[in-house]
Amino acid sequence: MICAHAMFLRRSFTSKTVPEALWKLGRLNHIAIATPDLAKSASLYKNILGADISEPQPLPDHGVTTIFVNLGNTKLELLHPLGEKSPIQGFLDKNKSGGLHHICIEVDNIQNAMKEVKANGIRCLTEEPKIGAHNKPVVFLHPKDCAGVLVELEQS
Amino acid sequence: MICAHAMFLRRSFTSKTVPEALWKLGRLNHIAIATPDLAKSASLYKNILGADISEPQPLPDHGVTTIFVNLGNTKLELLHPLGEKSPIQGFLDKNKSGGLHHICIEVDNIQNAMKEVKANGIRCLTEEPKIGAHNKPVVFLHPKDCAGVLVELEQS
Repeated sequence: MICAHAMFLRRSFTSKTVPEALWKLGRLNHIAIATPDLAKSASLYKNILGADISEPQPLPDHGVTTIFVNLGNTKLELLHPLGEKSPIQGFLDKNKSGGLHHICIEVDNIQNAMKEVKANGIRCLTEEPKIGAHNKPVVFLHPKDCAGVLVELEQS
Repeated sequence: MICAHAMFLRRSFTSKTVPEALWKLGRLNHIAIATPDLAKSASLYKNILGADISEPQPLPDHGVTTIFVNLGNTKLELLHPLGEKSPIQGFLDKNKSGGLHHICIEVDNIQNAMKEVKANGIRCLTEEPKIGAHNKPVVFLHPKDCAGVLVELEQS
């Protein structure tokens, strides 16, 4: 009994000495593609490549119209400017044909993820998470701190 | 018995009248990110974001060194130039910090996929598939025909 009790205590102490992760990285939620011609891009994925796609969804608060392309394990998000101050207009001005705009990775605790990335010198583009296109809190990380890639973290 | 036989026949005819697809689009295999600093980019995903990553793999035939970042449902492929004629050097010359380079989607029959995309006016960058980094046949589609995105199709 003493031996078993000692083992129990050791296990308890062992597990306590391992700090619990404050947040965990999850799966790739989507890849966003900005396009100057939403219907043509949607047709490429639906009619030529044979993927399932969603109906166009106007998101005035985000300045985009989106169509999701379902690839089974993840999604492409086709983005087209909506309104006069669309956040992707500048990107399309530089990339006339469109192009890969950002990737979105899920995290289970966005506040703790933000604290940790900031502590490691990765700039967040907003001080607080915003509510993203899926009605979940999101934050974008500065592309210059992420190998030139605009990375969105989304609370899963 | 007659009824069951009739149902069997109907099912047979029904399935025969549906033409079999000559190829099918599969899952997103990976997103490729070109980076001027492979160690720093790998550290971002491993040490700051906490993802599992592979060892660096030099691929002299492809002019790149790669590191794969496992995101559970798909992978990021970090690419760094190897040798003097690396196919990603031009991209890095234009994008000094690095950036999203291409996406790779699986297909179950690359020859039939190529025939169909060509018939729909999508240019392939090579006449025949090449053997890609995973030792499987791959072909790249012209970015100008794919909403500005370099799309790789890989035989699954």
